[in-house]
Amino acid sequence: MSQYLPIRFVDVRLEGDFWRERLDTVLKRTIPSQHAKLGEYGLLDSLKLPQPPPPLRFPRHANGFTVQVFWDSDIGKWIEAASYALSHRRDADIEAKIEAVIDDFEKAQLPDGYLNCWYLGHEPEKRWSNLRDNHELYNAGHMLEGAIAYYETTGRRRWLDVMERYVEHIRRTLGPGPDQKHGYCGHQEIEIALIKLYRLTGEKKHLDLATYFINERGKQPPHFFDVEREEREKKGWEFQRYTQGNYEYSQSHLPVREQTKVVGHAVRAMYMYTAMADLAAELGDAGLRQACETLWDDVMETKMYVTAGLGPSAHNEGFTFDYDLPNQTAYAETCASVALIFWAQRMLHLDLNGKYADTLELALFNGALSGLSRDGEHYFYANPLESNGSAERWAWHTCPCCTMNVSRLVASVGGYFVSRADDGIAVNLYGGISTTIETAGTRVALRETSNYPWSGDIRIAIDPETDARFDLKLRIPGWCRGAKVAVNGQAVTGNPVNGYLTINRVWQKGDVVTLDLPMPAERIYANPGVIMDVGRVTLKRGPLVYCVEEADNPGGRVQRLRLPRNAQVQITPRDDLFDGIVTLSADAVAIDESDWSTLYRTTPSREGKGTLTALPYYLWANRGQGSMVVWIPEA
Amino acid sequence: MSQYLPIRFVDVRLEGDFWRERLDTVLKRTIPSQHAKLGEYGLLDSLKLPQPPPPLRFPRHANGFTVQVFWDSDIGKWIEAASYALSHRRDADIEAKIEAVIDDFEKAQLPDGYLNCWYLGHEPEKRWSNLRDNHELYNAGHMLEGAIAYYETTGRRRWLDVMERYVEHIRRTLGPGPDQKHGYCGHQEIEIALIKLYRLTGEKKHLDLATYFINERGKQPPHFFDVEREEREKKGWEFQRYTQGNYEYSQSHLPVREQTKVVGHAVRAMYMYTAMADLAAELGDAGLRQACETLWDDVMETKMYVTAGLGPSAHNEGFTFDYDLPNQTAYAETCASVALIFWAQRMLHLDLNGKYADTLELALFNGALSGLSRDGEHYFYANPLESNGSAERWAWHTCPCCTMNVSRLVASVGGYFVSRADDGIAVNLYGGISTTIETAGTRVALRETSNYPWSGDIRIAIDPETDARFDLKLRIPGWCRGAKVAVNGQAVTGNPVNGYLTINRVWQKGDVVTLDLPMPAERIYANPGVIMDVGRVTLKRGPLVYCVEEADNPGGRVQRLRLPRNAQVQITPRDDLFDGIVTLSADAVAIDESDWSTLYRTTPSREGKGTLTALPYYLWANRGQGSMVVWIPEA
Repeated sequence: MSQYLPIRFVDVRLEGDFWRERLDTVLKRTIPSQHAKLGEYGLLDSLKLPQPPPPLRFPRHANGFTVQVFWDSDIGKWIEAASYALSHRRDADIEAKIEAVIDDFEKAQLPDGYLNCWYLGHEPEKRWSNLRDNHELYNAGHMLEGAIAYYETTGRRRWLDVMERYVEHIRRTLGPGPDQKHGYCGHQEIEIALIKLYRLTGEKKHLDLATYFINERGKQPPHFFDVEREEREKKGWEFQRYTQGNYEYSQSHLPVREQTKVVGHAVRAMYMYTAMADLAAELGDAGLRQACETLWDDVMETKMYVTAGLGPSAHNEGFTFDYDLPNQTAYAETCASVALIFWAQRMLHLDLNGKYADTLELALFNGALSGLSRDGEHYFYANPLESNGSAERWAWHTCPCCTMNVSRLVASVGGYFVSRADDGIAVNLYGGISTTIETAGTRVALRETSNYPWSGDIRIAIDPETDARFDLKLRIPGWCRGAKVAVNGQAVTGNPVNGYLTINRVWQKGDVVTLDLPMPAERIYANPGVIMDVGRVTLKRGPLVYCVEEADNPGGRVQRLRLPRNAQVQITPRDDLFDGIVTLSADAVAIDESDWSTLYRTTPSREGKGTLTALPYYLWANRGQGSMVVWIPEA
Repeated sequence: MSQYLPIRFVDVRLEGDFWRERLDTVLKRTIPSQHAKLGEYGLLDSLKLPQPPPPLRFPRHANGFTVQVFWDSDIGKWIEAASYALSHRRDADIEAKIEAVIDDFEKAQLPDGYLNCWYLGHEPEKRWSNLRDNHELYNAGHMLEGAIAYYETTGRRRWLDVMERYVEHIRRTLGPGPDQKHGYCGHQEIEIALIKLYRLTGEKKHLDLATYFINERGKQPPHFFDVEREEREKKGWEFQRYTQGNYEYSQSHLPVREQTKVVGHAVRAMYMYTAMADLAAELGDAGLRQACETLWDDVMETKMYVTAGLGPSAHNEGFTFDYDLPNQTAYAETCASVALIFWAQRMLHLDLNGKYADTLELALFNGALSGLSRDGEHYFYANPLESNGSAERWAWHTCPCCTMNVSRLVASVGGYFVSRADDGIAVNLYGGISTTIETAGTRVALRETSNYPWSGDIRIAIDPETDARFDLKLRIPGWCRGAKVAVNGQAVTGNPVNGYLTINRVWQKGDVVTLDLPMPAERIYANPGVIMDVGRVTLKRGPLVYCVEEADNPGGRVQRLRLPRNAQVQITPRDDLFDGIVTLSADAVAIDESDWSTLYRTTPSREGKGTLTALPYYLWANRGQGSMVVWIPEA
């Protein structure tokens, strides 16, 4: 089968209302306000070496740890997000701000290439002494991704040069040689960045270094994190950390090819699997691919929230055990759903199977997008599936990783819509884009027009420069039944294979494909292993998971509402809400709380008739505090 | 109204099957095995001053904290529990073990009276420098309670003498004087012990010191914990702790009389309220009493599990917000329910109101008793109300506070059954006891015979040495409807007032009171504010809360079972289970899990007919691992 590859996000224009609004918000509100926060919280000052101003807001933990060790990564991610945004619309002010940061990074870099502003500013003698906890490679990875994105958008390579020097330093420091540390980062990320650098430059040494980090991970005895801990202890530098001896936390408990269960910190896991899938494709490594597929099945079958949230536990910001998916206390970090999108995209390009695109879409419209407020300046770090009313979006977070992860996702979302092969085009997502793709020896202008995800009525104009035969692969979402496809009004027969319907023909300028994806309201039930959701149901329409929020259901906590099994669910376009959305509503059974005074009693609650209105989950908590529930008790 | 006071536990013989079995188990299994664990884990060695063996098992946390600072209290509580047990049956071996501990304590005590083995063995220069975290007074309190119990049982006052010297040292060290620390303990407990010492010795100075600690608590500015923290910082002794600035954790955020909401660490809270209620009674302090009543209402109306478990959160081992009562993650520390019993008993003797005895009984038979395994050698520290099957009892705990709290409770449970006044006797609990009580100028032998809590058929023989008129007050439990009382076969008319039915007559030798407390199976519903329990029901019979456990419901997780609203609940005596208990069972709806393969799907689970069998909650997790649920989904 032909090899499908992503096209660059910079080559895709977002034209549909849904993503246009999100992108505009990120451009106008999120990117500038994030820069302001980076200043306000001292992150930008932390680059002012050799004597950064003392960090006032974040005293170091007693055990020696501080979130400031992540700060380089936050700045790197902001530049990455801003660069994606700039590809849609250049902005001199933002570019000047980025250049100022690059000035600082350039000045901070040591002659040997080292560039970590936390260590340089605070404890330069300890560099490379604690890869387990202190994120040097993680930071380097995000900085490198930022540098690549900035270069791709602007063509300016000053920061990329800086980062390539840093990568050379890293390559000298870590590796299999006798004088090198045989190590890897406690927080995976640099592997993804190195593979991007390889793809940008074609230099295999970058792919090799990523491969080294992935292959070295989890080897023991001795375990690298123990080796470096012993070194620290000799120097009196050790501090106790949750991570000590907890190899699962960083997915370093086993060599990666032997891992079959998704464990530990969710973002670490997703970043690692992303790199593994990338390497499986680049190296044609069947063992890595098999490990990726096994891990994919594990998370899909036992560990993913219906919103594509990942990692139920705040304790380890990660995974616990099969079917442990508590709702109110769900951690489901925004970063983890964003990273699941990265992984799903890599899996999709290992194997063009709609199941990966289904998950990518689910995470995009639900668990990831829920992390960004409607106004573009407030965030969820954790994305619970139920609230008693106390949950509230944050203007910023002590550890602001999620803020820039969601902005870089939205600003680059165009890159997920379409893939290309030498003899075909695959349309993975819908929502209104235009692009031009080289395939089958010609350039094909593709314009997809729709009001997706509100409607499944989709039009795709295919305009090759010259007539050409190639495959047009249309993803038929896994949630869709009864899809209808036509070319120039002629119905296309045939069934989708692995989630894609393939139309092979000689395409000509002016060809129009129409796609009708019926979008009824659906009830979703959870495997009874998820004991929290027994007797409960979720509403979903198309790719959107719905929730019941107090703002649409005034009169007390929404947990008072139960949805009868046989209640008809109405689909209502609501132009008055959030610039036009679709809500779902149904007759409900409503508990009458008025006759309750005690905590317990022997008579059940009185129940009456009520109505239940649900809105897309990603929009919750944009209208003040209020209760919310995704899994609605059935009556 | 007459003042009712508890009678001493040593004056009550437990004769009913239920408590006799628990007491025998504690005597034969729990007390000896706890001593063995105290040895095995190094607690007994920690008394071997001046050079205790190095603590191998419990490395100190990086922030300087170690659970070893509690160890004196654990040993004190073991002696207290053992002493209560000895009052039922002397045991030379146990007594020799206690004497050996007292030898160590006596040798360890400094000439000035100071006696804390952690500080003496590890950092003597730091004594009294961190009352917030390091539990010196808490330890002293438990040691003092142990010394009092040992003296009451054996008449030996060597340890009591040691502890009285320590109390004098404490009195010199802490207090209002210019050279004294104006402080109190971060973990309340010593107040209870000092009031006990006052009641034993009649020396008002002990009551005064308890009053000082209670009155001083929460005064600010400056807050005592800040004053001592600043002192430590000057000396370089400070370590960061969760407790820093978190005054609610230790209920020192406000002067106690101004506290209206139950907050913070649950055991700390309950111990404090216990002391406050004691002092309210001793001092006739209306402000303290009012605070106690307000706090009581708060916990009863918004914060108590149906099992009388307290404190939903593991994070602070304590309280969060109103109606936050998650089931699977319930912390509900055994110690907290034990301490609720202490508080309820004090409230009951401030105001002989059955509502306090109802809660005392609920905690006793459910949230507290669940902490001790059937075999008497395994424990729950946390007492969740739902399990996916992973919960398991512990043979010991890093912080073994709960183990000895439950053993001292069971060994002294006789002390809760009956109260006396100068003109009356109140029977608070049922279950088979005999005692002799002085009232109305005579000695009254009272023997209560029943198979309670399995049956509400109760017989009370009243045998005064001489005929005497007095009140016999019989508690009619709050859960009981249709209670019937007769004296010598003659029905007693009249209604209970505040939960007690009063029979005032001239009692004569041979009088027999019979009490019939109907015990139907009941359904209990939670206030809809408890969002976790909406659509769920708990089964209860008499004082026992029931749970559905996999051992009685084989075929998969019990969460598959739903109880129809109209299903008849059968009451079944089961002589084959746990030496004879009563189970509840009903027709149920059972989810068929066999056709599930995915994590989510659009069709609901198939459901079939099933049966549901419930057993008393306190017995759960005695037959291996398995799922369990207290709040059953209704169908």
